[in-house]
Amino acid sequence: MLKAGIMGSTGYTGHELIGLLKRHPAVEIVFAASASSAGSDLIQAYPGGPAQALVAPDEVDLSSADVAFLCVPHGSAAPWAKRAIEAGARVIDLSADFRLSDPQVFKSWYGVEHAAPELLDNAVYGLTEWAREDLPEAQLVANPGCYPTSVLLPLLPLVQAGALSGTVVVDSKSGVTGAGRRPRPHTQFAELSENLVPYALGRAHRHVPEMEQALAWASPTPPGLIFSPHLLPVARGILSTIYAPLAEGWDEALLRQVLTGAYADEVFVELLPPGDAATLAHVVRSNRCVMGVVVSEGTAIITSAIDNLLKGAAGQAVQNMNAVFGLDETLGVV
Amino acid sequence: MLKAGIMGSTGYTGHELIGLLKRHPAVEIVFAASASSAGSDLIQAYPGGPAQALVAPDEVDLSSADVAFLCVPHGSAAPWAKRAIEAGARVIDLSADFRLSDPQVFKSWYGVEHAAPELLDNAVYGLTEWAREDLPEAQLVANPGCYPTSVLLPLLPLVQAGALSGTVVVDSKSGVTGAGRRPRPHTQFAELSENLVPYALGRAHRHVPEMEQALAWASPTPPGLIFSPHLLPVARGILSTIYAPLAEGWDEALLRQVLTGAYADEVFVELLPPGDAATLAHVVRSNRCVMGVVVSEGTAIITSAIDNLLKGAAGQAVQNMNAVFGLDETLGVV
Amino acid sequence: MLKAGIMGSTGYTGHELIGLLKRHPAVEIVFAASASSAGSDLIQAYPGGPAQALVAPDEVDLSSADVAFLCVPHGSAAPWAKRAIEAGARVIDLSADFRLSDPQVFKSWYGVEHAAPELLDNAVYGLTEWAREDLPEAQLVANPGCYPTSVLLPLLPLVQAGALSGTVVVDSKSGVTGAGRRPRPHTQFAELSENLVPYALGRAHRHVPEMEQALAWASPTPPGLIFSPHLLPVARGILSTIYAPLAEGWDEALLRQVLTGAYADEVFVELLPPGDAATLAHVVRSNRCVMGVVVSEGTAIITSAIDNLLKGAAGQAVQNMNAVFGLDETLGVV
Amino acid sequence: MLKAGIMGSTGYTGHELIGLLKRHPAVEIVFAASASSAGSDLIQAYPGGPAQALVAPDEVDLSSADVAFLCVPHGSAAPWAKRAIEAGARVIDLSADFRLSDPQVFKSWYGVEHAAPELLDNAVYGLTEWAREDLPEAQLVANPGCYPTSVLLPLLPLVQAGALSGTVVVDSKSGVTGAGRRPRPHTQFAELSENLVPYALGRAHRHVPEMEQALAWASPTPPGLIFSPHLLPVARGILSTIYAPLAEGWDEALLRQVLTGAYADEVFVELLPPGDAATLAHVVRSNRCVMGVVVSEGTAIITSAIDNLLKGAAGQAVQNMNAVFGLDETLGVV
Repeated sequence: MLKAGIMGSTGYTGHELIGLLKRHPAVEIVFAASASSAGSDLIQAYPGGPAQALVAPDEVDLSSADVAFLCVPHGSAAPWAKRAIEAGARVIDLSADFRLSDPQVFKSWYGVEHAAPELLDNAVYGLTEWAREDLPEAQLVANPGCYPTSVLLPLLPLVQAGALSGTVVVDSKSGVTGAGRRPRPHTQFAELSENLVPYALGRAHRHVPEMEQALAWASPTPPGLIFSPHLLPVARGILSTIYAPLAEGWDEALLRQVLTGAYADEVFVELLPPGDAATLAHVVRSNRCVMGVVVSEGTAIITSAIDNLLKGAAGQAVQNMNAVFGLDETLGVV
Repeated sequence: MLKAGIMGSTGYTGHELIGLLKRHPAVEIVFAASASSAGSDLIQAYPGGPAQALVAPDEVDLSSADVAFLCVPHGSAAPWAKRAIEAGARVIDLSADFRLSDPQVFKSWYGVEHAAPELLDNAVYGLTEWAREDLPEAQLVANPGCYPTSVLLPLLPLVQAGALSGTVVVDSKSGVTGAGRRPRPHTQFAELSENLVPYALGRAHRHVPEMEQALAWASPTPPGLIFSPHLLPVARGILSTIYAPLAEGWDEALLRQVLTGAYADEVFVELLPPGDAATLAHVVRSNRCVMGVVVSEGTAIITSAIDNLLKGAAGQAVQNMNAVFGLDETLGVV
Repeated sequence: MLKAGIMGSTGYTGHELIGLLKRHPAVEIVFAASASSAGSDLIQAYPGGPAQALVAPDEVDLSSADVAFLCVPHGSAAPWAKRAIEAGARVIDLSADFRLSDPQVFKSWYGVEHAAPELLDNAVYGLTEWAREDLPEAQLVANPGCYPTSVLLPLLPLVQAGALSGTVVVDSKSGVTGAGRRPRPHTQFAELSENLVPYALGRAHRHVPEMEQALAWASPTPPGLIFSPHLLPVARGILSTIYAPLAEGWDEALLRQVLTGAYADEVFVELLPPGDAATLAHVVRSNRCVMGVVVSEGTAIITSAIDNLLKGAAGQAVQNMNAVFGLDETLGVV
Repeated sequence: MLKAGIMGSTGYTGHELIGLLKRHPAVEIVFAASASSAGSDLIQAYPGGPAQALVAPDEVDLSSADVAFLCVPHGSAAPWAKRAIEAGARVIDLSADFRLSDPQVFKSWYGVEHAAPELLDNAVYGLTEWAREDLPEAQLVANPGCYPTSVLLPLLPLVQAGALSGTVVVDSKSGVTGAGRRPRPHTQFAELSENLVPYALGRAHRHVPEMEQALAWASPTPPGLIFSPHLLPVARGILSTIYAPLAEGWDEALLRQVLTGAYADEVFVELLPPGDAATLAHVVRSNRCVMGVVVSEGTAIITSAIDNLLKGAAGQAVQNMNAVFGLDETLGVV
């Protein structure tokens, strides 16, 4: 049995992850830490369970874990990653701390000096379907952001194939668990119910550099990005509607050929048949990314849906853990 | 034009009240105070409007107002009531500070010494349909709580008529604006959506003594009360399902006769025809209380619905203001 | 592997059941029939899956199944039960057809002549925790209604122990999947969102005779029932708030002792600690029934929550199947 | 008092319209017809009111009306328009029948021969802010579609000014009342709650030709359109996020200058300050269109929000009626 430890257990991501790990046939949780709720049980915060005793971060023995999952806030994960690696654990970081390979870029978007820049070079960006070769050797996996996961899965193969040109418009809509569990005015039921809230339009969201970095890995001439997130009155799920101008000579059939080539054998990625669009109902409570594509006016209109807490966070983290330790990637995830 | 001032403008009740007053044909707002948002405009907190400049409580000239509405938290209203009355304004208090006539009872339920017990004797409990005789002379109106309004309107005439015996069970369900605007974990969208949360079951809610006090005004032998509030995944509205054992000789026809006698001429109270039950859709965004009644096993099952922010708070407050100043009660409310 | 067949696959209950059976380690689905969608796949109606080819009811070979689940409308199940038993299959009927042991009572509540009254005597009412002795021999299991499951689990041990007297008031609130999948005006999003709808108040709902029949099994002098269902703006889950007057000498501690005695060893039934009330969040997407109890004014106030599609339908059906075939009851359910 | 008649009273639009007209100080309803509910009262379908007796379409005396509002389905309005005009009434048609000036285009999108093509030439496309000159003389007003209203109000001045070039991407999200009141599977609460559903992506929606026709009025070289509607889990409101590539030399300041020039004096159109985006909360239950604009990567990102039942249907219809009859446009609308 793999011994897993969790830092940051009471946020939505930590809770979802603990639920997955407790049902995982090859994993045993050795600790679940929480700075705010140490001494209590996770079920007190989430009455639907699971039960999991919570310990103080200071009391954790990192060396007892084969793998440490970091679900702490951005900026707080890097020091824990360092300590966990020194203690001999593999690390899967669900924060943003190791997603951007350049510490200056990190600083400009997250406002703090990176606490462990020396680890950046060896961190693997864990979009599992694209990181498989590197995962078995990875000491440190940077689990991708939720929006980027929904956007990169359809875009990476198309950019790599040279199918796109010009600026890609990404209009994303996210459930409110993506905003975290700390109570805030705009995430209150009475404010969000019957509402829809765009925010950080254009190039203002921290996921923009993350997406651009990955697209640049796929092509020396990646398309530009406009990214418009919206807060939806739903608990979970992301739907990204992506408008990607096609390069000369591309049509829907060719796009489908590329996407099928990339994902036909993937358990967690599905291309819908012509005419179908992805909806949240396709993916909520599953680790799948479901995508539809149609071409209009020389532009690919891609709908890509994930569950932000699963494929967009905890599910992909477990998928990554499975890959790191040589297990069947689907174990404990479906 | 009546000159109205509001203390506590940015909570749900204050916002709703300001919206009503701005549309009221005989009222002019002379100040709207907010301790937390002074210097900004109400529309920054509520993008749907209305616009209303907010001032600091300290800067308010209470003597400029003919009527002061207090939408501040329980315990904070009493000092303001005192100052406003001294400044010559009539006061309509939407907090609980003047609902309980006995300061000891207040202290035992609200945990603080009453700040102006000398005003209690002259405060009028403003369940408008039952307070009309006293309102024109009232210096101070205690606007009823939201749950009590939904419960007392159907029960008062029945208790007065001696129709009930034994213990009345009140199973109430409230929209989340009733819990106030301060962000808290259980009022987050992701926690409340797809949920239903009972709380303060039995005799633990502060509205129990308020309801019992009013029932005791109606009868020397009022029925006992069990009260179970539930938090609903809706923004606004209260539905109380009331189970009232009938006294000997009472049936549905007689109950209907009493209720019709009490409310046939009332604009804001409606008894549904036999077989119909009240729903939130009957009342949300109106100042009405709609009630249905059916008898089963010698028990009256009464459904009573109000909008917690209107008949349960701001709407009844304006109705009371109209009555205090001799205006048509419906002015600015429908 | 048990061979399972499903009649009526595209309703909410059939879909939920198929999802459970496909993940069940000891079950293989041999057919899934649908009168309305034969020839298509279940995933076309439910994009989140699972995939399951649907066949016409006429084309089904009932003898290929060890167990037939009937998820067809009330009145349509009895003929199928007959044919399935004749074909040698055990039957688990999720309709109401075999819940009431008296065919005259069935007729008076469901408006049709019972199609297989000769089977009623041997049908086992499958409230699993109370039917365990009879299930291994059962040819035909009548899976309980959703509301009755939420009500009987807490009430049966208390009635059996003689703890209650007088009339029990049951105020139930149900998610809209309980109303079935056929589109109707009052279950439209725009009608139900921000609404709450009481219906069939008192003794008008078909689940009343079902609950009374079971209570009469537990005591020769069962309490009377008042039952008030409400339609909630949530997809799934039932919360019943039950007001049960206590017999002489009973208090909260004694009630807890009885409930603990009945359920301490049960995986799917949980009594919350003193002071806690059951919420939908405790149970949605689980097969559990979670209950809280508090006493006020000589009345037990019991909150009892289930997922209407799981413990209230498909989950309990699989639990019953496990019991019928001697498997671990929790297999494929948790 | 203007005498108003309504054909098609029980849909969401008809109901909303009747509510507005009953509160309108200068209007009297002379008939409200409903094919499906003749003989009953509107309040039976909408318990929140208003009350309005419904008559059979055949029994209506069109000549009794100064103005006839047509809220019947597409294709059914044209014959009524003809009869109403012959009877001497002015007509405001809320269906699509007179929005497209070319009957061949109508036929290709709506699948039926136009029933009154001779009226098309004189029909005024009633986007009020752009139709004011023609409204006083109009016999027949084609009330714009809901999506087009949200899109054309921001785009028309920009297209007229030559600010845009290339293809405009419109990503629209609509509340479910836009889909009409007839119960259908995908508009059921249990299907739409926690979901988000794109449909008719690209150029497949009937509002595309309507928007393109209006843009072509504004410029001989209008931009191309990609239009992607999404169904939101909210009852009412449309938010369109519009991505419009700028022509050479345009920036945010210039765009704001054009929009301010167009709408600074408009009561119902508001441009938000820099940095703010429109949300549904800005507009629901008001007749306003609120818009935000930001420029990124040479593309204007415009958020434009309306209430689909008010500015997108009944509210604009009353605004148009006011303009037709020379009344203050805001009468009965705010």
